[in-house]
Amino acid sequence: MSKEDVTIRARVATIRRELNKKKIDCLVLTKPPNVTYVTGFSGDDSWAIITARMVYLLTDSRYTEQAQAECSRCKIVERTKPITHAAAKMLQKLKSARTIHIEPSSSLSTFQKLKRRTKARLKTADGIIEAVRVAKDATEVIAIRSAARIANRALRLVLPRIEPAITENELAGALDFEIRRLGARNSFETIVAFGPNASRPHHQPGSRKLKTNDSILIDFGARYNGYCCDLTRCFVLGRPTAFYKKVYEAVRHAQDAAIEAIRPGVNVLQVDDAARSVIKNAKLPVYGHGTGHGLGLEIHEGPVVSKEGKGKLEAGMVLTIEPGVYIPGKLGVRIEDDILVTADGHKILSRKDSDEVELTVLSRTRRRN
Amino acid sequence: MSKEDVTIRARVATIRRELNKKKIDCLVLTKPPNVTYVTGFSGDDSWAIITARMVYLLTDSRYTEQAQAECSRCKIVERTKPITHAAAKMLQKLKSARTIHIEPSSSLSTFQKLKRRTKARLKTADGIIEAVRVAKDATEVIAIRSAARIANRALRLVLPRIEPAITENELAGALDFEIRRLGARNSFETIVAFGPNASRPHHQPGSRKLKTNDSILIDFGARYNGYCCDLTRCFVLGRPTAFYKKVYEAVRHAQDAAIEAIRPGVNVLQVDDAARSVIKNAKLPVYGHGTGHGLGLEIHEGPVVSKEGKGKLEAGMVLTIEPGVYIPGKLGVRIEDDILVTADGHKILSRKDSDEVELTVLSRTRRRN
Repeated sequence: MSKEDVTIRARVATIRRELNKKKIDCLVLTKPPNVTYVTGFSGDDSWAIITARMVYLLTDSRYTEQAQAECSRCKIVERTKPITHAAAKMLQKLKSARTIHIEPSSSLSTFQKLKRRTKARLKTADGIIEAVRVAKDATEVIAIRSAARIANRALRLVLPRIEPAITENELAGALDFEIRRLGARNSFETIVAFGPNASRPHHQPGSRKLKTNDSILIDFGARYNGYCCDLTRCFVLGRPTAFYKKVYEAVRHAQDAAIEAIRPGVNVLQVDDAARSVIKNAKLPVYGHGTGHGLGLEIHEGPVVSKEGKGKLEAGMVLTIEPGVYIPGKLGVRIEDDILVTADGHKILSRKDSDEVELTVLSRTRRRN
Repeated sequence: MSKEDVTIRARVATIRRELNKKKIDCLVLTKPPNVTYVTGFSGDDSWAIITARMVYLLTDSRYTEQAQAECSRCKIVERTKPITHAAAKMLQKLKSARTIHIEPSSSLSTFQKLKRRTKARLKTADGIIEAVRVAKDATEVIAIRSAARIANRALRLVLPRIEPAITENELAGALDFEIRRLGARNSFETIVAFGPNASRPHHQPGSRKLKTNDSILIDFGARYNGYCCDLTRCFVLGRPTAFYKKVYEAVRHAQDAAIEAIRPGVNVLQVDDAARSVIKNAKLPVYGHGTGHGLGLEIHEGPVVSKEGKGKLEAGMVLTIEPGVYIPGKLGVRIEDDILVTADGHKILSRKDSDEVELTVLSRTRRRN
């Protein structure tokens, strides 16, 4: 059995245990990252159906070849009809399943079409795959770390282009291009914000040109082998003001404090509070967003590390820590890294290289002055 | 009243007529392009609610400022709770609405959460906004034409980089970069396929390097002011084979034939068949995909121009015409343009510039030989 097969088998075994506990005979997965997680399939427009005996992948002729290569442990069913019709037909044949569970992220129209064509009872089952996905296996951690390495490398490659008069849009495009050249994709739309634009956490890059002594915020990520990373870096082209330096240091300390708090068994509120307290004690405005979020096949997954967060950290979780300080019209600083919860603490998956990045920028900055 | 306000007012009036016909008091829109169409709002995570008297935009503090600027004809409601809670609370206050209709593209979980919190009956209403959206107004046609101009310009800008050894991935990245520099975004993930890779219509750009005499297929689009274009161009770096030329000519003739057939009142099957017949008569394999699709706020909208297509063309529709020939392991050629159905025929929104593009490439190609 290949390494991938072993991984998939372990995932399916864990999921079947959960299904057993909840007395679910048959679960229909329509959400693409869940389909990928359970089958290994990386294409689109396909569903997975899990029963006690089998995992089916319902796909179409565009993807059959790819599915055969990627999903050696699934039964691949090639459909010619619309997916709801084909699924209903399959489900009719699975006599063991009197009640069929479907993900509540499925659309109402999917539900209605399935209902019209099956005799089984249809129910929803929420978060079963997501709950298993929060703890990453080795393959996943490697993919996230690779994505982070690519992102850091791409940033290093565009640093020489960060010169006066480059626009936010051009810098974002140049970074995206390097991510692509390194064999990855963006994990979300790159944010580049110059000067006071950085005070809006979801700023869209525009035509603002960089000026000497402007600050720069870049929030970006690569997706590699299906897995996302999510990083934010801030620096100044030229001489940072004393206030900017103060803010930067406070955000860095807040991030350090939250990262230090990460280990299995810790409540997410404690991690969230560790970062916020530092900002508060520095008498700076405390950010309105969460301190972090899980990531993996999706850019936002569990756990949620915020004031509304619930639960405790577990080994295998991978999460961002991204405190910030925003002063409208003036500045915005956020620093974000991706951290693995290990058996005895944590491991930063996105630093090392990034530390070098910051040194590079700072020394370049110093040379200018 | 601003031009935008006039446009939005006309849209809402048309939609209200449809709602009246169907005896719908209150329609909840959760699908982002429909929310944009009805309100003018270009942000995310917001719903629109249409009643006989009012259009509400339900958004959150991140977007309030933007909504105030974009949606002068809506009542903007800023939520602090999850969107389903806030919507349920609003709907409870709308006493006129005993039955509330929601789009079937909404998730099951949205439906369940709303249901739990409202006394009104909840029903689904399908395709109401989409049916209005198929006929574009002037603002929309201008946006699509602008997107097509940007896409063509971006392609022209990357032509000098199409040299031996460039990879599919690099070329796709360079094109995306130019689209961005021109102030637009990709309307979907760019396809670049060299040589026999082009025989797979949904090929993902990879690390294949371009060789002299390789053919190139680029399927790409820009999104400008929210509106998509969708173009495919094919050419050869060097000397095309006699067979490639034959195929290219056949595809071009097939496209011309379909475009010629476009006018109001024509059945979509007739347009589809016009293209297929040319390929068939040239004794080439007839493509498995549709001949075209509508586009606008989404990259795929009605009408569907395929063997399964239904209905007639109407003035104001904008659709792609994109026949192709695919010979596995050998070649793939597809040519795609975006066409407006006018009162008395049609207008190609994506040519002119693109004609120049082809001439440029061909003359460059000729110089090489």
